[in-house]
Formats: sequence, structure tokens, C-alpha cells
Amino acid sequence: GRDYALAFAARGASVVVNDLGVDTAGGGRSSAAADKVVQEIRAKGGKAVANYDSVEDGEKLIQTALDSFGRIGVILRDRSFPRTSDLDWDLIHRIHLRGSFMVTRAAWNHMRKQKFGRIIMTASAAGIYGNFGQANYSSAKLGLLGLANSLAVEGQKHNIHCNTIAPVAGSRLTETVMPPDLVASLKPEYVSPLVVWLCHEQCQENGGLFEVGAGWIAKLRWERTQGSIVRQKNKPMTPEAVRDQWDKICDFTNSVKPSNVQESMGFVINVLSRVEDGEAGANLTA
Amino acid sequence: GRDYALAFAARGASVVVNDLGVDTAGGGRSSAAADKVVQEIRAKGGKAVANYDSVEDGEKLIQTALDSFGRIGVILRDRSFPRTSDLDWDLIHRIHLRGSFMVTRAAWNHMRKQKFGRIIMTASAAGIYGNFGQANYSSAKLGLLGLANSLAVEGQKHNIHCNTIAPVAGSRLTETVMPPDLVASLKPEYVSPLVVWLCHEQCQENGGLFEVGAGWIAKLRWERTQGSIVRQKNKPMTPEAVRDQWDKICDFTNSVKPSNVQESMGFVINVLSRVEDGEAGANLTA
Ligand SMILES: NC(=O)c1ccc[n+]([C@@H]2O[C@H](COP(=O)([O-])OP(=O)(O)OC[C@H]3O[C@@H](n4cnc5c(N)ncnc54)[C@H](O)[C@@H]3O)[C@@H](O)[C@H]2O)c1
Ligand SMILES: NC(=O)c1ccc[n+]([C@@H]2O[C@H](COP(=O)([O-])OP(=O)(O)OC[C@H]3O[C@@H](n4cnc5c(N)ncnc54)[C@H](O)[C@@H]3O)[C@@H](O)[C@H]2O)c1
Repeated sequence: GRDYALAFAARGASVVVNDLGVDTAGGGRSSAAADKVVQEIRAKGGKAVANYDSVEDGEKLIQTALDSFGRIGVILRDRSFPRTSDLDWDLIHRIHLRGSFMVTRAAWNHMRKQKFGRIIMTASAAGIYGNFGQANYSSAKLGLLGLANSLAVEGQKHNIHCNTIAPVAGSRLTETVMPPDLVASLKPEYVSPLVVWLCHEQCQENGGLFEVGAGWIAKLRWERTQGSIVRQKNKPMTPEAVRDQWDKICDFTNSVKPSNVQESMGFVINVLSRVEDGEAGANLTA
Repeated sequence: GRDYALAFAARGASVVVNDLGVDTAGGGRSSAAADKVVQEIRAKGGKAVANYDSVEDGEKLIQTALDSFGRIGVILRDRSFPRTSDLDWDLIHRIHLRGSFMVTRAAWNHMRKQKFGRIIMTASAAGIYGNFGQANYSSAKLGLLGLANSLAVEGQKHNIHCNTIAPVAGSRLTETVMPPDLVASLKPEYVSPLVVWLCHEQCQENGGLFEVGAGWIAKLRWERTQGSIVRQKNKPMTPEAVRDQWDKICDFTNSVKPSNVQESMGFVINVLSRVEDGEAGANLTA
């Protein structure tokens, strides 16, 4: 978060630096973390105020922004939490996922009124691909993507855009898992320019997902197989038919890239009449 | 859930039918829902016991299975909840996401001991693509995918497989949003054969995501652009460079299909030396 704040302030933005100032074990609370970043920004001639509430108190955070600057521009959903065991499910979910929801909801109507908003959710490759020992974290992180997907749909017509990034950068979080030279090389400054661009009024990207790190940026989307109709008219559908069609179900040749829920739903409904017309894939092999 | 239970019982499985028996508004509690399904199964000569605990009491549910049948085979993660406003975040997240975690965690060590387990998470197209008015639901549903992704990684070597489905079927849940003829035509029996196959010991699929409905089944995966290196050696990375490279960042020509977090991480780390070698994409256009 520190680096995003500095990057935005350098571009003339007024920044609310929100940090609870917990230690890496999730305990303690201090205003030092946020204050330090505010001082850095002000020393460079930028505008910033600190806020020490937890993201769970979304309203208070947004009120700080309104009191100080009169408007809401961009919300940075960038909160880490120390690595935890599966037992720490609730803490991870409360901070990463519920906290992001609280802050975003508190800001939404202000953004609507302004007819401008940019929201960045910080997911993780751990959620996208799965990772050993990170069930709680990867779940919360992909939950953020699900949230972002729906916010993108709802926000579009109000010029509220919501994108998601999966960053890799050296930080207090990653220094526990990465060798020191990598922590030093993978600078947060190689992530924040993407965040700044995604928040620009000229950027029309909405509902995107990006992997970013080391100065490289790539976009992700869903790819779906053509799949197979394994049911035949007036016959029960069986697990054996599914098994027999498995290669076809999983074959990504001529894959499609569905982009919304209507497209997905429309396709399924269309299958009903295709089965009536005897188009079952099972016919071809059975 | 009813239809999965019937499909499994018909194949000789011993089934624990877990249902809290809430009304569509999430209130009330009755044993009738689970009992009815158990009776249906027994009437057909199948083996089933009922359990009325909430999925949040994962241990109790698993204990019922152990007490009755002595082992854990498959967990069906199939719990719906009535459509809610965004304010109902906690309820949706508690039941769909936290409940699934609780049940899965309670079963995990039993599955490990048996060297066999099959877990199915029920996500939704709303989470995959985003949907209007479903921010809470789509977030919980994609959270399940994140959970499944990590469980697939951890379970592989223990023969515990975890797959995710995004179904479309007529049910109490969808009859509030679909016309009656669609609710009648999109039968749950056109979904459950996939679940049965994914739970079979011969099925080697793990960490997959499937859209399924009407008798059609397709598989999804992540597709990623080659992306662009927007940083040049010894120069600061700028939002302008990101903007200038945007088309390249979003160009899916020659896309890649990364399949795990190591691959993703390895790629990012590799970028560090590619920048040192002057390979920045920005060089090509600047
Ligand atoms: N660094 C990476 O490689 C990486 C990879 C994937 C995802 N992420 C995500 O990026 C984000 C930033 O992580 P980071 O690496 O900079 O970690 P970090 O630990 O350096 O920074 C996180 C900050 O959030 C603050 N915080 C914790 N709980 C809070 C609360 N309730 N309210 C307000 N502030 C709170 C902490 O005090 C800390 O200053 C996190 O969401 C993390 O999950 C990082
Ligand atoms: N039907 C669809 O088209 C569709 C689409 C996408 C996802 N889904 C998902 O599929 C699953 C099944 O949905 P459905 O359409 O069959 O809905 P449904 O409402 O017919 O069935 C859900 C059952 O879960 C029970 N339940 C609720 N809370 C519980 C708790 N705490 N513990 C135990 N049981 C509980 C309910 O009593 C109900 O019997 C849900 O997870 C839903 O989100 C369904």
C-alpha cells in the first residue's frame, strides 16, 4: 500500500493512508505505519491524511476522505495479513474479503454521485492457481475476484470500474517466504504504475484480472472448452456417459471465451433444444 | 443436493443427507427436508441417514457419517441460500464459504487416512463472470474456487481430489429468477451425473472447474496473455509506459495457460534478468 500511496501522491492525488499498524502476527495497533507514509508524501509536497481504523470500519475510512478532501476517487484494496494456518480462516476472511467489501460499499454511493470511481482489488496467484498451505488465503483472495466481477458489472454504467491485480513484490509479507535478494529486487514500484493507470479516468478497463511483478504485466481471462452434450433425448443421463465423453469435455481445441453470465446462461438454455434435435455428443460415439 | 444424494445412493453409496431445513428466507429449521430425501433413498433400497446440523458444525456432520458408515467417501458441497441484498454478506459467506471450509476440514484427515477422498465445491457462473446484484454471492462462490484450488494442490498426493462445478438447474433457489418452464426443463438430474463421475475412484481429474447444465458439460481454465515488460533497466517504471503498452498487455495472441503458482512465480522472477538484458517491451516502441 505504501508504494501505491506514494505513486498516487506524486501524480497530484490526495491520499488517505489507511493502516491499522498491526504487527506481522496480526496483533498490536499503532498509528506509526500510516503516519510514516503521510510524512513521506508531505515531505515531497504531496497531500495526504492518515486514518488508523481497520478496513472493517469502512464508513470511518471513507468519512476521513470526505472530511479531508470532499470527494472519493480511488480505493486501494491492499491489505495484507501474515501467513496463517487454516485455523486462521476467520481473520484472513474478515480483513481481506469482508474489509474490502465494507470499504467498497461505504464508497459506492459517493462514486455513483461523482459518476467516477476506480476500485482495485488485490488478489493473488495463490488464489488463481492454488497453493500449498494457503487454503484460507487463496479462498479470500479469489473471493475478492468474485466480488470485483460483480462490481464491474454493476459499476459500468456509472463509470465505476473495478479491476483485480495479482501482484508479486518484496514486502513485509513476502520477506517471510522469499530470499532477501528477491525481496529487494521485486520492488513494489514495479507494481504501482499498473494501479495508477487502472485508476486513471482515461483507462476504460473494467472487470479485468492482471498478474504483475518485476515490471511485467499480463492479463487473464477464462477459456472454456466447447464441451459435450452427454444427454440423449428421452434417456436418463448417466455418469458412464460423462466418463465416456471426458476427453471431449476437457478438449480445449476451438475453445470459447465467454465474457458474461448471460452468455453462459444462454448457452445452457440453448442446449435444451439441441438435445431435442438429437444433437447429443453421445450419439456420435455411442 | 437432493438429486446428488439420489444419484449416489442409486450407485450403492451410503449417503449422509445433511440439511438444516431452512426456509428460502434463511429462517426456521426443520428436519423434514433431510428426512424426506432419506426416505426416498431407503424406499429404493439405498443406504442413507439424515443429519440436521448446519454445515458450520462440520465436525458433527462428519461424525454422523463415521458413526453410521465407518468411513468418509465424498463430500457434497451443495448448499444454497435465498437471494439476498448486499447487506446479507455475512450470512451468504458463513453458509456457502465458511460452512464448506468447516465440513471439508472436518473430513480431511479421515480422507488422508483412507488415501481416498473426492470433494466437490459448488460455485456459480455469477462468481465466474460477475452478475448484477450478486456481489455477496459471487464473492462467496469464487471464494470456494480459491479454496478448491489450494485443496487440489494439497490433496493430490493423498488421492484427495477437489473439483468445482458451476451448475445451472431448476430448484427452489432458481425458481425465484427463472420462468417455470425453464425450472422444469433444467433438471438437477442433468447435473448430478457429472458429480458422480468426479467422485469416482477412477476419475483422475483434480482442481478442475466445470460449467454444467441441461446435459452439457464444459471445462474452464485460465488463459493469460504473454503480457509486456514495461520497465527498462535503471529507469523508473511509469504509468505512462503501462498505458502505452496496454494493447500488448491485453493481447491474447499466443496466450499461455499457466497451471500452478510456481510457474507463475518463476515467470515473474525470470523477468528480472530479462530487464537486465534489455528485453523491455518498452524498448520496442519507445
Ligand atoms: N507482496 C506480494 O508479493 C503479494 C502477492 C499477492 C498478493 N499480495 C497482496 O497485496 C496486498 C499488500 O501486501 P504487502 O505485500 O504490501 O504486505 P504488507 O504486510 O507489507 O502490507 C500490508 C499492510 O496492511 C496493514 N493492515 C493489516 N490489517 C489491516 C486492517 N484491518 N485495516 C487497515 N490496514 C491493515 C498492515 O498494517 C500493513 O501495513 C495484500 O492484500 C496481499 O495479500 C501481495
Ligand atoms: N440451481 C442453480 O442453477 C445453481 C446455480 C449456481 C450455483 N448453485 C449452487 O448449487 C447449490 C444448490 O442449490 P439449489 O439450487 O439446489 O438450491 P436449494 O435451495 O434447492 O437447495 C439448498 C439446500 O441447502 C439447505 N441449507 C441451507 N443452509 C444450510 C446449512 N447451513 N446447513 C445445511 N444445509 C443448509 C437448504 O435447506 C436447501 O435444502 C448451492 O450452493 C447454490 O448456490 C445453484
